[in-house]
Formats: sequence, structure tokens, C-alpha cells
Amino acid sequence: MLYVVGVGAAKGYLTDRAKEIISKAEVVYGSERAIEYAKEFIRGEIRVLKKFGKDVYEEIEREAKDKKVVVLSTGDPMVSGLGKKINGIVEPGISSVQLALAKLRVDLCEVVVVDSHGKDSYDEIEKALEFRGKVLVLADKNFDLSKVKGRVIVLENLGLEDERVGEDIKSDLAIVYVER
Amino acid sequence: MLYVVGVGAAKGYLTDRAKEIISKAEVVYGSERAIEYAKEFIRGEIRVLKKFGKDVYEEIEREAKDKKVVVLSTGDPMVSGLGKKINGIVEPGISSVQLALAKLRVDLCEVVVVDSHGKDSYDEIEKALEFRGKVLVLADKNFDLSKVKGRVIVLENLGLEDERVGEDIKSDLAIVYVER
Repeated sequence: MLYVVGVGAAKGYLTDRAKEIISKAEVVYGSERAIEYAKEFIRGEIRVLKKFGKDVYEEIEREAKDKKVVVLSTGDPMVSGLGKKINGIVEPGISSVQLALAKLRVDLCEVVVVDSHGKDSYDEIEKALEFRGKVLVLADKNFDLSKVKGRVIVLENLGLEDERVGEDIKSDLAIVYVER
Repeated sequence: MLYVVGVGAAKGYLTDRAKEIISKAEVVYGSERAIEYAKEFIRGEIRVLKKFGKDVYEEIEREAKDKKVVVLSTGDPMVSGLGKKINGIVEPGISSVQLALAKLRVDLCEVVVVDSHGKDSYDEIEKALEFRGKVLVLADKNFDLSKVKGRVIVLENLGLEDERVGEDIKSDLAIVYVER
């Protein structure tokens, strides 16, 4: 049995359903950050993921054939997370997109969410702005704000101690809100 | 102090942060369903909301000037919820959109989410399909599936006991996934 469980964007966002799934697992995989958020509910063996990729995921899928395995995903597994990469049952978590929308008081049904991690997404952002006028971009330090035409708000490290709202990007956990 | 707190799409989806805010409130407003999900964490006075509208929200905002008030919102307040209607601090919750994406194994960054409750949204859905090819529609019984061009999956009452995946709409808590 294999579950991909969202642990939320920061500590304190785990749901009771997620806690229950985590506590029943024999083996729990996750990044250091994800393990930290879920640690008090883990009863099984902890395996910190240092490498991510197809090989690692296939190995986990094999192990889950005769064990209860959980893979933790920070935020929500279906928001640029592990939910599409690992073949398991997905349990949602609170994503940084939700924290951004809450802070901006913008509804999900008004925006387009664009993943810009490790890819050139400026064309997609432009089309999304033409379609809806409001876009949330999941971005990192490499994102070039000057290539985006509109009013920009940068939200970083949402839910964490060094949370920050500004006009430039300093973190790899950034959300760029664009409106025009 | 006024908080708008997401209680999730079903029982068991409350986060620890949401529970803490709820337990500190002197007055807690919410629909019968929202109160049910949060009841065990409420210490203050419970007021079941039977009417929704600007007058009601303004009255709550006035009360919150000298009391700790929480308004519960099923799902996430920023997914066609109360977050834009009531002027308070928004605490996110797990929405039915997230449950749908988890079940479909579709990422939020691949879709457009369209709210179709109480309005004609067929043009918006068509434009969203042209833009991204994958759309999630928040729909009710009045939604006419024949007006949508694409492969359709209807997900209803997600997270509840009568959860159902099919090709027709029987519930007012429906999510219609369209792909083409």
C-alpha cells in the first residue's frame, strides 16, 4: 500500500486524516523539511529522501507492494508535488498557493496557477494573464520578474518564520502574484 | 478580531492551526455542516448561520470589533468560499477541488478552476479549455453537461459517505472535470 501524503506548507497544517495515514505506515519517506512537519505522528521507519527522480520512485513503489509505505510531500501533492510522480493514493495538504490566496484575499476561481520551477514559463504566464488577468506563479530565485507585464507581489516562505511579502525574489519558495 | 476559517470538505480535514484559532474564539458562526466538522474544538458560543448575505456579514464584522469571532467556511474560504465576502483574516482548509485533483491525479498547475454555482459559466469553461485543455468546474444540479465539449467526469460529495464518481450530476456539491 502506497500513500502520497501532503504535510502542508509549514508546521501545524497537517490534517487528522493525514496524521492517521502517517501513523499507520511501516515506512515513511520524505525530504528533511517534510519529515520535520510530520515527525511526531510517525511510528514506522523514517527514510530521509536526499535524491528525487524516477529510479527512487520506482524503488519505493516496489517496496510498497508488501509494506505500508507513505511518501510525504510538502504542501499539497497535487500542487507541483509528488502526486503525479509516484503511483499511490494521494492525501491532500495545505499548499503555499492556498496561503498566498488567503493573504491576497483572491479566490482560486479568479486565477491561473503556473508552475515555473526549472522551466521557462513566461509565454504561459502571458497567455494566462490574457485569459484571466490574475496569475499565481510558483517561482524560484531564477525567475525574472522583468519578463512579466503587470502589477507584481512576491510572497516568500509562506507560513514559515521568515515569511516575507515584497517586490523582489530572494527565496526558492516564492509565489509571484501578477495582476493586470 | 475576525477570522474566516476553512474546516475542510469533510470531517477529519481540520488542521492544527485552524483548530487553535477556533478554540480561542468567543463566538463561532457557521453553516450546520461547518459547525458539525468543527464542533469538538469550539469553546465559545455557537451561532448556526441560516441566512447568508451582505447584511449578515456586516453584522458579524461589527461584532468582531470587540470580540474574538470566527466564521467557519466549509472547504477552503478562498475556493468559492466566504474569504472574499467577509473582511477577516483567512485560514485555509482542504477544499473539494483538492480532493478531486487527488482522485484524478491531475496537478493544479495543469487546470483552470471555474465556479459555476448560480451563474452561466459555459463561455468561461470553453475559453479555459482552449487555454489549458483541462478544467474543474464547481457545479450544482442546474449545470447542463451537454453544453460542455470534452470528456467529462463528475465527482460528487467528495470525502463524504455518499461520495460518487460518474457521468451525471445528482448533487449540489459536484465537481465536473472536463478534458479535451
